[in-house]
Amino acid sequence: MPAVLPRTYEDQNCSIARALEVAGERWTLLILRDISRGAERFDELQAGLGIARNVLSARLARLCEEGVLERRRYQERPERFSYHLTDKGADLLPALVWLLRWGDRHAAPDGPPAVLMHDDHPLEPVVVCAGCGQPVEGGVHVVAGPGARAAA
Amino acid sequence: MPAVLPRTYEDQNCSIARALEVAGERWTLLILRDISRGAERFDELQAGLGIARNVLSARLARLCEEGVLERRRYQERPERFSYHLTDKGADLLPALVWLLRWGDRHAAPDGPPAVLMHDDHPLEPVVVCAGCGQPVEGGVHVVAGPGARAAA
Repeated sequence: MPAVLPRTYEDQNCSIARALEVAGERWTLLILRDISRGAERFDELQAGLGIARNVLSARLARLCEEGVLERRRYQERPERFSYHLTDKGADLLPALVWLLRWGDRHAAPDGPPAVLMHDDHPLEPVVVCAGCGQPVEGGVHVVAGPGARAAA
Repeated sequence: MPAVLPRTYEDQNCSIARALEVAGERWTLLILRDISRGAERFDELQAGLGIARNVLSARLARLCEEGVLERRRYQERPERFSYHLTDKGADLLPALVWLLRWGDRHAAPDGPPAVLMHDDHPLEPVVVCAGCGQPVEGGVHVVAGPGARAAA
């Protein structure tokens, strides 16, 4: 893909960079993975991930602040919360599906540890362009969008 | 998605975790972004990303080791290399496309800074299941795969 985008990388006026500000950290994506698989409670997430409690706590607070997760109180005394994906959070799952597929293909010497099922058959994700109905296998290039800043 | 996967998270026998071992770091994904847009040379990457030279150098070495990038010598004295995506590296791009789309939707107050074009029209990525031809919008759950370890 040729680079026809004005070079505004310095201040990272880029939706990938901004997405990574929220989700570009290993724990964040693994937390979303576990929540998408049904883990909800702090202790459950903590035990599953083997992550330090203070790190998990900071991550969950950040993700709630960003609107990726919402917490719901499920117990009053002591106060306990469960964590759930918002629509904004669920919209990150296709990136996780792709990372899973990549890991299955390139980093799973014993075969896939887990298989994603789509209803009753194994999920075979392909990225298709809704504009033309064709699988995306190249032919992609970048142009400046409405939010681009003028090149200095 | 219900959790029917045996809980082997402790040692992260998981293709998402393994993919993030390689790609789950902000610089890595931004390096792949810039290379996919035509940046090839160390100085070009360094200037575009504003990353410290030693960090970039370590990242590029790691990505070559992992087979995500390959380097080619383009000058002999002094020796200079350019960096290119391998097939394994190019296979990460759909995850980047999705992160871009997510950032455009959820973190681009002034509109998308960049637009991905698919040939002559804007790319509208959707994830479709090749098994059934339907867009993936739920109905996904996880089962143990061939590489799963028996639960302790």
